Amino acid sequence: MCELLGMSANVPTDICFSFTGLIQRGGNTGPHRDGWGIAFYEGKGFRTFKDPDPSYKSKIAELVQHYPIKSRSVISHVRQANRGGISLENTHPFTREIWGRYWTYAHNGQLSGYENLSSGHFKPVGETDSENVFCWLLHEIEQNYAEKQENMTEVFRFIARCCDRLRSLGVFNMLFSDGDYVMAYCTSNLHWITRRAPFGHASLIDEDVTVDFQKETTPNDVVTVIATHPLTHNETWSKMQPGEYCVFHLGEMLTCNSN
Amino acid sequence: MCELLGMSANVPTDICFSFTGLIQRGGNTGPHRDGWGIAFYEGKGFRTFKDPDPSYKSKIAELVQHYPIKSRSVISHVRQANRGGISLENTHPFTREIWGRYWTYAHNGQLSGYENLSSGHFKPVGETDSENVFCWLLHEIEQNYAEKQENMTEVFRFIARCCDRLRSLGVFNMLFSDGDYVMAYCTSNLHWITRRAPFGHASLIDEDVTVDFQKETTPNDVVTVIATHPLTHNETWSKMQPGEYCVFHLGEMLTCNSN
Repeated sequence: MCELLGMSANVPTDICFSFTGLIQRGGNTGPHRDGWGIAFYEGKGFRTFKDPDPSYKSKIAELVQHYPIKSRSVISHVRQANRGGISLENTHPFTREIWGRYWTYAHNGQLSGYENLSSGHFKPVGETDSENVFCWLLHEIEQNYAEKQENMTEVFRFIARCCDRLRSLGVFNMLFSDGDYVMAYCTSNLHWITRRAPFGHASLIDEDVTVDFQKETTPNDVVTVIATHPLTHNETWSKMQPGEYCVFHLGEMLTCNSN
Repeated sequence: MCELLGMSANVPTDICFSFTGLIQRGGNTGPHRDGWGIAFYEGKGFRTFKDPDPSYKSKIAELVQHYPIKSRSVISHVRQANRGGISLENTHPFTREIWGRYWTYAHNGQLSGYENLSSGHFKPVGETDSENVFCWLLHEIEQNYAEKQENMTEVFRFIARCCDRLRSLGVFNMLFSDGDYVMAYCTSNLHWITRRAPFGHASLIDEDVTVDFQKETTPNDVVTVIATHPLTHNETWSKMQPGEYCVFHLGEMLTCNSN
């Protein structure tokens, strides 16, 4: 399948440490060698790096790993192709605009029977089930909310209801962000951890790398990392339940509900 | 203002040489230090590198300069901000989807009186005149053509008519691509050159770099490069006329018309 990585933080934070763990799973410690991508929000803008080649030996992944891009909201993905060939247009994350905001999405899983979901003017470019249902989700959001809502919690509750429909079509773990909020929806595997003071050491599972977050942070930093499987072996990650969704904002959990 | 760089080629070709010249103009040999970006199409997919920092000292630009990404259609831009602050969301090129294809656009110039152009569901994310009129152009295309046309020359003629309207609002030099075609519209400064066998040497104006294209190509390669100002001093570039538009496909000029 694939693996997901997301981050929500209250100060612009780099994701070099977690990304170093993830990209090993893209062909080295894991089988997800069919492309990778990462989107960083900075203000209302974003930048995405992606590659249809395996992440563990990608020159571009190496740059991202060593060049600290600081962001409050990040979504990343390493791919093991099932539906749709290995190509740039099938590489996650995907980004589209609604309400004058960029929405970014990545999916882990496989769906059947999604072909008849209407996506309005949002047309998929590639052939993946993932991009198809992303277009459908955006269409549903745009049909139900003509503009950004004051109460975004309600919008994410609506998105979770849409995800419940997709859950009936197969495995649907996903990350979704408008740059301010990062939403996680789980049907099988998603874990998260919130780091805050007092910060400690963390050691990656997939690489021999340890970081002392105390040295990298200030006492008020709050950073949540979401991943398909825990990335560190000396911290306690929370496992999400099937049908559960969580919304994070500035590193803090806003809501977390089973459906 | 800004500078534009585009490429259309019949085989996947890297743009390292031309990009090396362009990025010097982003703060070193030119004043365009307010960000830069480049989009490469590969099949129906694309990848964009962008940075709100000056290109001539950008780590990411350095990667793009030295890591040959091969593409048939490329659009790049170095920015000198006029409308809209220095930020990632105001950094060109911009990409949006219509008809299940990604369209990429970059603009050089400044417009007035564009605020009332209706862009339908395409909402600008940043504050630039450039992105505003990109959204309007996409809306016009989508309103007039429900899907990809067999005769794309007609679509580009329609786009050129829309650009004529924008020309009345100020300076509007732009590059526009759906991945297959690269269109250039000129109101003041745009130059192009088509390189084909027999290939020769070329020397950059902005850097002490010379390339022997004979060594980098095969005899059937056809590569057109479009730039605000010529990038080499020992080749003959064609200067576009005000109101002229050209459409390139697989390196060859399809059409070039003054309005």
